[in-house]
Amino acid sequence: MLTRVKSAVANFMGGMMAGGSNGDHPGGGSDMPLKFPYSRPEFLGLSPDEIECSADHIARPILILKETKRLPWATGYAEVINAGKSTLNEDQACCEVLVVKRRPAGSSTPNRTPMDSSEDLTFHYWALFDGHAGSGVAVMASRLLHHHIAMHLQEVMEIVCTPNLLAPTCLGEEPINHHLTSTSQRKKVSQESLVVGAIENAFKDMDVQIEKEKAVYNISGGCTALVVVYLLGKLYVGNAGDSRAIIIRAGEVVPMSAEFTPESERQRLQFLAYMQPHLLGNEFTHLEFPRRVQRKEVGKRMLYRDFTMSGWAYKTIEDDDLKFPLIYGEGKKARVLATIGVTRGLGDHNLKVHDSNIYIKPFLSCCPEVKVYPLAQCEHGADDVLVLGTDGLWDVLSNQEVAEAVTCFLANCDPDDQHRYTMAAQDLVMRARGVLKDRGWRISNDRLGSGDDISVYIIPLMYGNKQN
Amino acid sequence: MLTRVKSAVANFMGGMMAGGSNGDHPGGGSDMPLKFPYSRPEFLGLSPDEIECSADHIARPILILKETKRLPWATGYAEVINAGKSTLNEDQACCEVLVVKRRPAGSSTPNRTPMDSSEDLTFHYWALFDGHAGSGVAVMASRLLHHHIAMHLQEVMEIVCTPNLLAPTCLGEEPINHHLTSTSQRKKVSQESLVVGAIENAFKDMDVQIEKEKAVYNISGGCTALVVVYLLGKLYVGNAGDSRAIIIRAGEVVPMSAEFTPESERQRLQFLAYMQPHLLGNEFTHLEFPRRVQRKEVGKRMLYRDFTMSGWAYKTIEDDDLKFPLIYGEGKKARVLATIGVTRGLGDHNLKVHDSNIYIKPFLSCCPEVKVYPLAQCEHGADDVLVLGTDGLWDVLSNQEVAEAVTCFLANCDPDDQHRYTMAAQDLVMRARGVLKDRGWRISNDRLGSGDDISVYIIPLMYGNKQN
Repeated sequence: MLTRVKSAVANFMGGMMAGGSNGDHPGGGSDMPLKFPYSRPEFLGLSPDEIECSADHIARPILILKETKRLPWATGYAEVINAGKSTLNEDQACCEVLVVKRRPAGSSTPNRTPMDSSEDLTFHYWALFDGHAGSGVAVMASRLLHHHIAMHLQEVMEIVCTPNLLAPTCLGEEPINHHLTSTSQRKKVSQESLVVGAIENAFKDMDVQIEKEKAVYNISGGCTALVVVYLLGKLYVGNAGDSRAIIIRAGEVVPMSAEFTPESERQRLQFLAYMQPHLLGNEFTHLEFPRRVQRKEVGKRMLYRDFTMSGWAYKTIEDDDLKFPLIYGEGKKARVLATIGVTRGLGDHNLKVHDSNIYIKPFLSCCPEVKVYPLAQCEHGADDVLVLGTDGLWDVLSNQEVAEAVTCFLANCDPDDQHRYTMAAQDLVMRARGVLKDRGWRISNDRLGSGDDISVYIIPLMYGNKQN
Repeated sequence: MLTRVKSAVANFMGGMMAGGSNGDHPGGGSDMPLKFPYSRPEFLGLSPDEIECSADHIARPILILKETKRLPWATGYAEVINAGKSTLNEDQACCEVLVVKRRPAGSSTPNRTPMDSSEDLTFHYWALFDGHAGSGVAVMASRLLHHHIAMHLQEVMEIVCTPNLLAPTCLGEEPINHHLTSTSQRKKVSQESLVVGAIENAFKDMDVQIEKEKAVYNISGGCTALVVVYLLGKLYVGNAGDSRAIIIRAGEVVPMSAEFTPESERQRLQFLAYMQPHLLGNEFTHLEFPRRVQRKEVGKRMLYRDFTMSGWAYKTIEDDDLKFPLIYGEGKKARVLATIGVTRGLGDHNLKVHDSNIYIKPFLSCCPEVKVYPLAQCEHGADDVLVLGTDGLWDVLSNQEVAEAVTCFLANCDPDDQHRYTMAAQDLVMRARGVLKDRGWRISNDRLGSGDDISVYIIPLMYGNKQN
């Protein structure tokens, strides 16, 4: 059995790595070279053989960080491939410690104020990407997004590194002015908001780069992105998509992200469609109905809601309401334009509604929501962690179940074992994947396990107390 | 002094009641008849003389509900006029118990299923309106909005009155079908969401009626609207504007509304302007800067943010950035298009940017956010209340200060005194207005009192336990 699967996987992978691309995703052409070959996260240090074995959809081996590999802060990591949903594992991950160097002299910014300290700026970075319709964009984002963040941080590093400074309105203005300027004339902009802005604009630049390079490379699909930046005592959690981050502190859950789905972003999408009806190509309606409207129901009063409503009301059905709804389906089955189930992320520039000329991209946002956690101001024990997971984890386990599992697991580990966070991540992936029984993957209480790719980081927070 | 003020007020009011309208607010013409004359809330039962006296901007008498007048649930109410900001008190209030009758036979809805009970549907209603640029819209909304709500509730009353029903997708479908229909094919729509939808659409209809009737009546200005509907055991709090509702339960604050201001709605407004740039009339930019950009700064890197950002970043200033920002100013001084400080409400159809042809209305929303509180499911004591206040209250007192003041005041009243909630409302208005000293109105800690109109309801919640 294993041989057959392995050889099938090798064939698939050969195809993908030579430039195969999903039929639903034309453009970014399969005849062009790959921007980056398919792989697993660099920090796993897998051999080509191991990568091949990891793509076994029957055995679904859980990959973990090797004991010989160390991530910053003793971060734990584990992942598993899907149960056949896609040939390759479309999740990707990246973890780096980056150093932002001061700009060389002769920079384009005039009147630069010298920094008090000539030290470079270091930041920690963890990221998860969940790809769809191909792995190209997820791989590319996992290789490049942190560099975009570093570039944006570089422009503001002198400001964010100087203690107790407000951001100057113009770069190059004397910092002393900012304290004197009356607050009635200008907004106070904190150093923290500069970091948030840097992360937001890095996502946009990443998306623009993907779009541009699709002209010359085969970069398939799209991906969600969940990133954590630790900088000067604070954690910045940026999320575009349906991955999730939670902090577990003394066993309690602190949500650090919200998901962006057709349901959570319904009103934004309906508003856009209402303002720009041509984006619906005369085939969709921006109104929501509880189910498809049938022709015989024209003239009846049916439940609906528009972009202004969170409640429901009845309206008289007209011919126009027979069009397919912009948002349709519930929960994991909800789709925008009958096509995509996640509304923020990177890529998808060529994605169209099946058999039409209607582009999905105008409805997708590449902008993350960034939440800030003042890590250095809080005390954390060895069992306080930040958990990042792709939707494969959260589809089957609640925040509470994850918190209980991790807390319980860590309590039974040697606190000095640096590998404990990876073991806890492995335990989480195992709980979400389950075990293969007669009728598929099963988890506790005989519930269905996740058939999706699952990737999990467990980041201990006590290391944030010790450095900045 | 009083005489001079009284006669001045009488002149103003004569002018207003004969159709005077603010110069900034052309249209809804001052040569047309008033839709409703200026007045104070009906439940106060004031004589014309008393109304005249209430408009004394120097003495600022606090009006309270007379002991002989009873509002449902022994609701308390108090108000005071501004310190000269506008001639008349532009706040308005309404409190009613409404009965929605079953539709007469021969209704337009086909296949009507008979109700189990033939009883009519009763709901309680409290509302505050805060007018600007004239009192016409606030007065009209205080007289009519509840009728729009009643009309929308009438359409769904048979559904919301039948226990444990899901809303049928089409009106007239047999209710039995709804339990049988597979949930994968249609959304479950709760009775609660029908009430929310009814309130949302009532606001829209009210706004349309104001627009239409402006063609034949003098209906000046615009107003915010905060309404509470108690129906079948639940409180529905709908808010469009910057008034606020909080529940005080065992001394703890439960916020029941959020404010809609240029700052809280920045991203919605910037997104709209970005999608429909013609609405800015080539005079405004949708970008936000910390202060006005000066011509000499073109080419420099200045802080900005667009609709996608909550953080800030630097951009190179171009000529286009010299336009006035769509959102400008901070806190109470923040304005949309340099004109208006509140972004949701009714009216303002003719409001334009000063000395231009740029309309403000496209940026304003008449749609409330509706929050639901399951009153009958909670136990409440005599000191547990819902406080509604216009921004005159909340500008100077925090939620916490209001909760402490009310809790402390009620603790010192006879629990059986039905007038205690009005006395508590009077105490709140007094704390927010303060007392007139040499240099203006002062409240505790020598802070500045509110110079705005202030209106406050205090609604005891224990009555919700006893009825539905």
